[in-house]
Amino acid sequence: MAMDTAALSRIGLAGLAVMGQNLALNIAEKGFPISVYNRTASKVDETVSRAAAEGGLPLSGHRSPQDFVLSLRRPRAVVILVKAGVPVDQTIVALSHFMEPGDAIIDGGNEWYENTERRIREAAARGILYLGMGVSGGEDGARHGPSLMPGGSLQAYRNVEDILTRVAAQVDDGPCVTFVGEGGAGNFVKMVHNGIEYGDMQLIAEAYDVLRVVGGLSNSELAQTFAEWNRGELESFLIEITAGIFGVHDEHGGGELVDKILDKTGMKGTGKWTVQQAAELSVAAPTIAASLDCRYLSGLKEEREAASKALEQAGIGRGDFFVGRSIDKRRLIDDVRQALYASKICSYAQGMNLLGAKSAEKGWKLNLGELARIWKGGCIIRARFLDRIKKAYERNLGLANLIVDPEFATEMVQRQAAWRRVVGLAIEAGISTPGMCASLAYFDTYRRARLPANLVQAQRDYFGAHTYERVDRPGSFHTEWSKIARQSKIGAGILN
Amino acid sequence: MAMDTAALSRIGLAGLAVMGQNLALNIAEKGFPISVYNRTASKVDETVSRAAAEGGLPLSGHRSPQDFVLSLRRPRAVVILVKAGVPVDQTIVALSHFMEPGDAIIDGGNEWYENTERRIREAAARGILYLGMGVSGGEDGARHGPSLMPGGSLQAYRNVEDILTRVAAQVDDGPCVTFVGEGGAGNFVKMVHNGIEYGDMQLIAEAYDVLRVVGGLSNSELAQTFAEWNRGELESFLIEITAGIFGVHDEHGGGELVDKILDKTGMKGTGKWTVQQAAELSVAAPTIAASLDCRYLSGLKEEREAASKALEQAGIGRGDFFVGRSIDKRRLIDDVRQALYASKICSYAQGMNLLGAKSAEKGWKLNLGELARIWKGGCIIRARFLDRIKKAYERNLGLANLIVDPEFATEMVQRQAAWRRVVGLAIEAGISTPGMCASLAYFDTYRRARLPANLVQAQRDYFGAHTYERVDRPGSFHTEWSKIARQSKIGAGILN
Repeated sequence: MAMDTAALSRIGLAGLAVMGQNLALNIAEKGFPISVYNRTASKVDETVSRAAAEGGLPLSGHRSPQDFVLSLRRPRAVVILVKAGVPVDQTIVALSHFMEPGDAIIDGGNEWYENTERRIREAAARGILYLGMGVSGGEDGARHGPSLMPGGSLQAYRNVEDILTRVAAQVDDGPCVTFVGEGGAGNFVKMVHNGIEYGDMQLIAEAYDVLRVVGGLSNSELAQTFAEWNRGELESFLIEITAGIFGVHDEHGGGELVDKILDKTGMKGTGKWTVQQAAELSVAAPTIAASLDCRYLSGLKEEREAASKALEQAGIGRGDFFVGRSIDKRRLIDDVRQALYASKICSYAQGMNLLGAKSAEKGWKLNLGELARIWKGGCIIRARFLDRIKKAYERNLGLANLIVDPEFATEMVQRQAAWRRVVGLAIEAGISTPGMCASLAYFDTYRRARLPANLVQAQRDYFGAHTYERVDRPGSFHTEWSKIARQSKIGAGILN
Repeated sequence: MAMDTAALSRIGLAGLAVMGQNLALNIAEKGFPISVYNRTASKVDETVSRAAAEGGLPLSGHRSPQDFVLSLRRPRAVVILVKAGVPVDQTIVALSHFMEPGDAIIDGGNEWYENTERRIREAAARGILYLGMGVSGGEDGARHGPSLMPGGSLQAYRNVEDILTRVAAQVDDGPCVTFVGEGGAGNFVKMVHNGIEYGDMQLIAEAYDVLRVVGGLSNSELAQTFAEWNRGELESFLIEITAGIFGVHDEHGGGELVDKILDKTGMKGTGKWTVQQAAELSVAAPTIAASLDCRYLSGLKEEREAASKALEQAGIGRGDFFVGRSIDKRRLIDDVRQALYASKICSYAQGMNLLGAKSAEKGWKLNLGELARIWKGGCIIRARFLDRIKKAYERNLGLANLIVDPEFATEMVQRQAAWRRVVGLAIEAGISTPGMCASLAYFDTYRRARLPANLVQAQRDYFGAHTYERVDRPGSFHTEWSKIARQSKIGAGILN
């Protein structure tokens, strides 16, 4: 059935959970007629009603894959927003049957990048273009301007570039979208974005922990502190909402709601993948890994309660820990702000280096400065400081590590004393700051020309004949350690 | 060609690099006639010569897969010691052609456990039994008594149990071998063993770093210190060889060899796999992960040298760090010993919990106490303290974490003050102790009944409507944080 071209929609969106609905409304609001489809028809009706209620946005609902696909202007573009994995494959099967060469599928889910690369190949065999597009910003971002990380077919991107640039969040230097790279680059970048997000949330939780336990800050003081921080170098979405959280009263009882929330944290797959990819690529990402570990351990609530009792029975007591009764609150707050900022830089350095390593492996030619730019708005990690990361990579495209950028290096040096004080204080107080510790250890390891790894090499050569290099001459060496050690003056006296 | 049964070998070994040669000589020395084979014939001759030189050990060399296999008594058992991956598959193809139902293949390499599970299925289709057997102890262990971790076919194990129990290292409570479990259990256990080994080596390197940089200990004093530690709770192979290493003079110049070794560390795949599996199973293994990160970072020698200069240019100076000029050496040594021991317990707790989680997933029924026992001798991590781990699991088969075993809990409590002092001192000195920090953060996170994860849950519910639980009532809750925060008394004053 031929339809009047003028009546056809510019783009389609399948998968109408909240994210899908909101992104569809966002697209329609920007003036692009959109068709929507969902397997459960009630979601279609819901979306159509919302579009009507919002003043008659140009959105049409469809109840069959065929009607949906045929309602689109060619070359067609269909955004899919369903659960990653099998549901994406099922949706592709249902829709692509009615699609034609030159049409494009755009998966907006948190998909494993290799699944996208497989689908790119499968789609290409039928002449269909494919994009794996990271979408960040939660429900609110989807509705009012997300950060978009599309990767895969450049042609597919060109076909919808006008839509994506209007729909994305807008910041001072443009819309928060760019063509990330070929293959699964868009998904990979979104995965690392989420890993960085995990790190940010963990570091903020640690700042809260130190201020509350060591500094004795009330929720009201915490709200004030985070609001104040949000006017400075830490300005960011996560700091802003944290300030807001501390001010929310508990409807079911007295005090603030935050104190009533169970300390068990959920998670999605992207954080786990980030840590596994870091290991795969031999990139150190300890801050991101620490944030994951804390989520695992938070989930063991009953074990932790039992451990707390067991250690008390074994003699651990309040007296073992520093308590900040007479602490200077203003100074502590200022120190924690600096520790948080410095820790954050290290976490971003890890994420950026992970992207750089993968880009080199896959030939994606990722533009790290441009990625920092598209994260400046729309997404969960949006922050003032991303502009500084963007500029650091503009200054030096081949920057080995954010830490050695002259501006960041200066900031690290200025903050390191406060950072060390905070981490040291937390250790004395027995509360642990795993993310800040990991960042600090990363900093102190990376900036040291000489590490104690010489001993590790000696051990490996001792028991496994793995050989070693020397600092003073080229070549590969092996020593009969065991024999020599026993003959040595020192060895003779101490070894049996 | 039928051969006289009496002339047939009891077992065969293919793959005659040093490990293979040594294990073959070990088997022969224990009185089990063995046939050996290698694709490169010179290695066969070499092994035959060594067997002759060692007093005519019962070992015969073979130059073709057929001769080799047919020289074995049925049911045949062939140990393979070649590089993991494709070479194992190639060797299996070459040998299994001449094998018969009931015969067994025993892969002694560091193989990825899923490869072993695939090969078990492939072998089973032809009636051939299969074992994936972890072998630890390096060259010396292979020759004089390794720790063996066989998993897969129980029947295959039974067929060679008499050989393995004689060949393995012997400790007070038996030979360092046990049937680990079905499938790839043996490889998995060896993988985690190696991860723990990485952790141990890193923790020792950090102890060295603190004693040398903060304490100013000379190599001679370090040798004395480690030798002294090796007479106490830290008694272990790695501490022993470390003591020996510090006593080895540099032939090419003055001083000790350890100071001339380049601080760039190599690694194998097992450490990486351990970290990836920990993430896969949602098990926190931060100490092991920190040891891997330090190996990655140690490899970036040129970057580190550049970073060191960049930070100096940015203003970092010696005066920024605590230097232990007037430090009490004896007290520091004693503190570091305690920090090392406590950190080690946490690292082993992580490894054991990783094994427990995998065992539950795969139905392997791993006996953690028995695994600690077979690590008491032969392997790289052999240590007095493994007997205590064995006993902890004997006391409580379902022990959730080593840290809550009453004996270990008491030890942790006794050592925690020293541990905190050492980590705090290292942070002040700017040298970082990533492994000790990770262990301490693990301890302090696991033993806390209440973590700041409530804030993370609030954030997740704020931007992603992920819902949260409450401490005071059952159910799943969602709050319109954004709306309420802006209306709240606190929020009104601070939020724009």
